[in-house]
Amino acid sequence: MIHAFSLVHDDLPAMDDDDLRRGRPTLHIHAGEAMAILAGDAMLSLASATLSIVPSGVEPVGDSLHRRLVAELNAGTLGMISGQVLDTLGGFDAATPDTDRVERIHREKTGALIMAACRMGTLIGARSLPGPVADARLAAVSEYADAIGLMFQVVDDLLDVTQSAEHLGKRTGKDADAGKLTYPGVHGVEGSRVFVNALLDRATRALGSLPDGEHRDVLQELASFLAQRTK
Amino acid sequence: MIHAFSLVHDDLPAMDDDDLRRGRPTLHIHAGEAMAILAGDAMLSLASATLSIVPSGVEPVGDSLHRRLVAELNAGTLGMISGQVLDTLGGFDAATPDTDRVERIHREKTGALIMAACRMGTLIGARSLPGPVADARLAAVSEYADAIGLMFQVVDDLLDVTQSAEHLGKRTGKDADAGKLTYPGVHGVEGSRVFVNALLDRATRALGSLPDGEHRDVLQELASFLAQRTK
Repeated sequence: MIHAFSLVHDDLPAMDDDDLRRGRPTLHIHAGEAMAILAGDAMLSLASATLSIVPSGVEPVGDSLHRRLVAELNAGTLGMISGQVLDTLGGFDAATPDTDRVERIHREKTGALIMAACRMGTLIGARSLPGPVADARLAAVSEYADAIGLMFQVVDDLLDVTQSAEHLGKRTGKDADAGKLTYPGVHGVEGSRVFVNALLDRATRALGSLPDGEHRDVLQELASFLAQRTK
Repeated sequence: MIHAFSLVHDDLPAMDDDDLRRGRPTLHIHAGEAMAILAGDAMLSLASATLSIVPSGVEPVGDSLHRRLVAELNAGTLGMISGQVLDTLGGFDAATPDTDRVERIHREKTGALIMAACRMGTLIGARSLPGPVADARLAAVSEYADAIGLMFQVVDDLLDVTQSAEHLGKRTGKDADAGKLTYPGVHGVEGSRVFVNALLDRATRALGSLPDGEHRDVLQELASFLAQRTK
């Protein structure tokens, strides 16, 4: 819901002004701008409500873990909003080089929510493990999440300049048109591809400290998929 | 924060399109529409994060009460959003009379968050009381909250047609201009004043079942103030 909320608000005329998303009209095109603002607000509130529901027959995770999950989710949401502010409105110190700016924007606007998703799953999955073991897993997954979060947005920037709108189901070339900082804009297409591979390596190394098995395999597959996706 | 978020988003050009709030420029006038959308989103997320923080030295309220507070707050937020949808976009069955529509809109868009505030305070304050006593208090305060929530918006409608923008610090006469349903529009100015007094009576009666003392006096004062306010 938080991801969907962010797309609906980001597509608004005052933000990215997009009329196509997943090959269909964006919500403000379909239902009007007022409804798109309200629907985004409702999803954000519903996400918070949902995280606090204990479905019948399910053992609650306990108060301190529950509060930590709420904090992680909101840190992800607020990081994403902060990234949008930097991306849309600037706000950097004049001395900040473009390479630092684009990395910070991408880490926040895209990476923060991926980080929250990865950490929340780990906190829940590792809740019965001894403290130091759980901490080591959280550190490894956070390193992994940082790498794939950044990678996701670098790949997104690459697709935006190399793929057609028809293939992606959304408008392309728009970042360059809007004068926004992108990885290919700062590092070139080839430099961005090299960076994607380096990030995939980093994600893979981070997974090395996790126990063998299905979970690690799924995370590895996800990282490889995100590096190679074409839409 | 949730109240402030709702004002910032409601003032947006796609919603009420207001440029004056508390005698000052609205946020989108001051900082642009993108920032106003993002600031509203951030406040909504921060509110949820804040409700889950346990300040150092403070005893947490316990998991099940904490979850209930989250649910109450989000019910208030979602009620408010639902009221906005009805107010802005309609969506009623064609057979619903105006008197029912305006009451439902006002209960949701204004009353729901006042209800949440009153119930959350009561849930915390009554948490150590025996169950039936706590339930009776919650029922009384909910009845009070329903009356003052509705009253707040009826008074707001009255001020919108009887006071100057200069006095209120916001644009006036805008509901009628926008063709929105208002109490004076449906029941007349005199009928609305009679209704305000009836709601004040209802609020006062609801407080009658609460124990004597400072808390009841403050709630009574608040109700009287809201009935008589001129801005």
